[in-house]
Amino acid sequence: MDPDLSTLDSLLAETGTDAYCIDAAGDDSNQLYLSGFDAPDPFFTAYTGESLALLVSGLEYGRARKESRADAVARLAEYDHHERVEEYGEAEGAARTCAAFLADLDVASALVPERFPVGLADGLRGRDVDVSVDHGDAVGTARAVKTDEEVESVKRAQRANEAAMRAAEDLIRAADVDADGTLVHGDEPLTSERVQEEIEVTLLRHGCALDETIVACGADAADPHDRGSGPLRANETVIVDVFPREKVSKYHADMTRTFVKGEASEEVRRRFDVTRRALEAAFDALEPGATGADVHAAVCDLYEEEGYETLRSDPTTETGFIHSTGHGVGLDVHEAPGLNPRGGELKPGHVVTIEPGLYDPAVGGVRIEDIAVVTEDGYENFTDYPVELELE
Amino acid sequence: MDPDLSTLDSLLAETGTDAYCIDAAGDDSNQLYLSGFDAPDPFFTAYTGESLALLVSGLEYGRARKESRADAVARLAEYDHHERVEEYGEAEGAARTCAAFLADLDVASALVPERFPVGLADGLRGRDVDVSVDHGDAVGTARAVKTDEEVESVKRAQRANEAAMRAAEDLIRAADVDADGTLVHGDEPLTSERVQEEIEVTLLRHGCALDETIVACGADAADPHDRGSGPLRANETVIVDVFPREKVSKYHADMTRTFVKGEASEEVRRRFDVTRRALEAAFDALEPGATGADVHAAVCDLYEEEGYETLRSDPTTETGFIHSTGHGVGLDVHEAPGLNPRGGELKPGHVVTIEPGLYDPAVGGVRIEDIAVVTEDGYENFTDYPVELELE
Repeated sequence: MDPDLSTLDSLLAETGTDAYCIDAAGDDSNQLYLSGFDAPDPFFTAYTGESLALLVSGLEYGRARKESRADAVARLAEYDHHERVEEYGEAEGAARTCAAFLADLDVASALVPERFPVGLADGLRGRDVDVSVDHGDAVGTARAVKTDEEVESVKRAQRANEAAMRAAEDLIRAADVDADGTLVHGDEPLTSERVQEEIEVTLLRHGCALDETIVACGADAADPHDRGSGPLRANETVIVDVFPREKVSKYHADMTRTFVKGEASEEVRRRFDVTRRALEAAFDALEPGATGADVHAAVCDLYEEEGYETLRSDPTTETGFIHSTGHGVGLDVHEAPGLNPRGGELKPGHVVTIEPGLYDPAVGGVRIEDIAVVTEDGYENFTDYPVELELE
Repeated sequence: MDPDLSTLDSLLAETGTDAYCIDAAGDDSNQLYLSGFDAPDPFFTAYTGESLALLVSGLEYGRARKESRADAVARLAEYDHHERVEEYGEAEGAARTCAAFLADLDVASALVPERFPVGLADGLRGRDVDVSVDHGDAVGTARAVKTDEEVESVKRAQRANEAAMRAAEDLIRAADVDADGTLVHGDEPLTSERVQEEIEVTLLRHGCALDETIVACGADAADPHDRGSGPLRANETVIVDVFPREKVSKYHADMTRTFVKGEASEEVRRRFDVTRRALEAAFDALEPGATGADVHAAVCDLYEEEGYETLRSDPTTETGFIHSTGHGVGLDVHEAPGLNPRGGELKPGHVVTIEPGLYDPAVGGVRIEDIAVVTEDGYENFTDYPVELELE
């Protein structure tokens, strides 16, 4: 996959900087996107507009030459790295090695991401490299617009996601309910952990890895970032939020459903209905030229009309709609563009989730999340999973 | 788990700095260790010696108060973060919010890790916070010495690891060999990916998550960082390197075995035997007071005596013993202390792997890796898995 780096080219030209530089391991998605190389330890990438050069350890050299997008790969040993570290210590040695590498590339000024390590930045500045910070996240902005190939990767991850959601729903649906309302599977309480395991095994069988999965019941579900733990209970909301990463392509998908095993309360049913309408309102606003802020405002409008608090109506509220409407999905599960109060213009190729939700520890949590790609004339919602609350 | 932060206290006192500060998400192990809090997005932690304070988004506030080790948790909204961002933009707004938070803590000077983001560091410096870089990785150094509770977590992850290795070995052992030497499982070629899946499902069933697993055959196995792909072949080395993370505790284990289905060549057998002796030589050198450099030298001595290249005998070699002898294991799978040419003094409570290996694309790769804890009078190797090369 060859990324479109024209935004980087323009930025280098506008700012009169010699190179865009990243120091990070392959788990940093900007590094992975720019270098095309995944290594477990940090390595250094310099993009000058004309060429892409990597500086890696000897251990990564062979693989970097084979797998990366770089025009040139250098080894630390070529710059007497170990001798420098011996003489000046790790930090100063690393900065001197890196400065020598940049000098060979005729790079005297470097633009770096906000999260570039301050230790190396200070070290390079001490070696007369002019290091300035790109506050606009140019690589992240480039990553946000997906090629057809990238969209296909997200869609494959989403198919795996749907299989995993099906496994989770089936497990909850098939559970018995004991006298005190706890769900039971076989002879044991059905726990969040057990459902998470089923989801994760299903994802592995479908070629996906994953970091975390949310299966949160009752008061846990009222905290959007609580992953959930312990026995699930009947007649309470269970939020299932799954965001797998396809192993081969490393692209993510993301989907949430809310289930009640048994009977939902009136208020939960109302919140589910309003949230489903909030999802529709967001999609109605989703099109190229609209902003992430527009889409978020459509959701806030509806929730506030229906009498629920939002962070717009009360920035300190801990109940109601207390997160943003959605986010980009790609190499990171959360990336640009943001569908939030500061969200900018939406473009064809943006892959985003729409995930309105309402939270209250006294009621539980309700969230519905679909994933879609912005197209030339609107969007394509490629989520293929029913939106249903109550499971018999 | 309450970490021992006395090294941080001394460092703050010695350097006359007001606080040690980290800005990172919970996937940064230093952040997780210092704050006791795991969140998916970056948050800010300040440790003054007397108190630990967090600055988090409203979304994380409830969970941070419940789950973190902090004496005080502040929300971005308390510092008018959104108004600042509105007025000054994301980067400058974030720096102003953070500077106001530090001012409330009477912190005018901050020590930060090398990988602290340069964007925020520059922003704080612009708000008259004196930001200096801790080149000694004080939190990583504190993390390296494990409590009994932490060692128990690693041991539980290692038990899961052994179950996964057993599943992998059984799959390879049970495979048929077709006419051209490819391993066959059922009706299909037995691939690296299939064995990885079996390992990963086994780990999930044992409460562990994982990032990657190495199952590398033949020439792939000759590259220590190659994860392996495609069909496995008889009479070639297969390196299986598994490094799971226990989900609950977040501590890792790490173990490697090398298998040959069928018959190994004379040279592979010799390399396996020498590597087993290198493992023993390393363990003979492993004790408190010795250095990581001593342990690494013992392995280099043996390999060089037996006629193999090492990075010590030739820093640019791409064959022979081309990595370090081992590394600490804990919240990160690679952490301090290093068993390498620059490895410092070993202390009781250090959990380390010993992983000598020999690599040559023409021969394949051989690596054996055990995991152990340094004790008051030596070490305890808590790896419980046979070291055998050939599988019938």
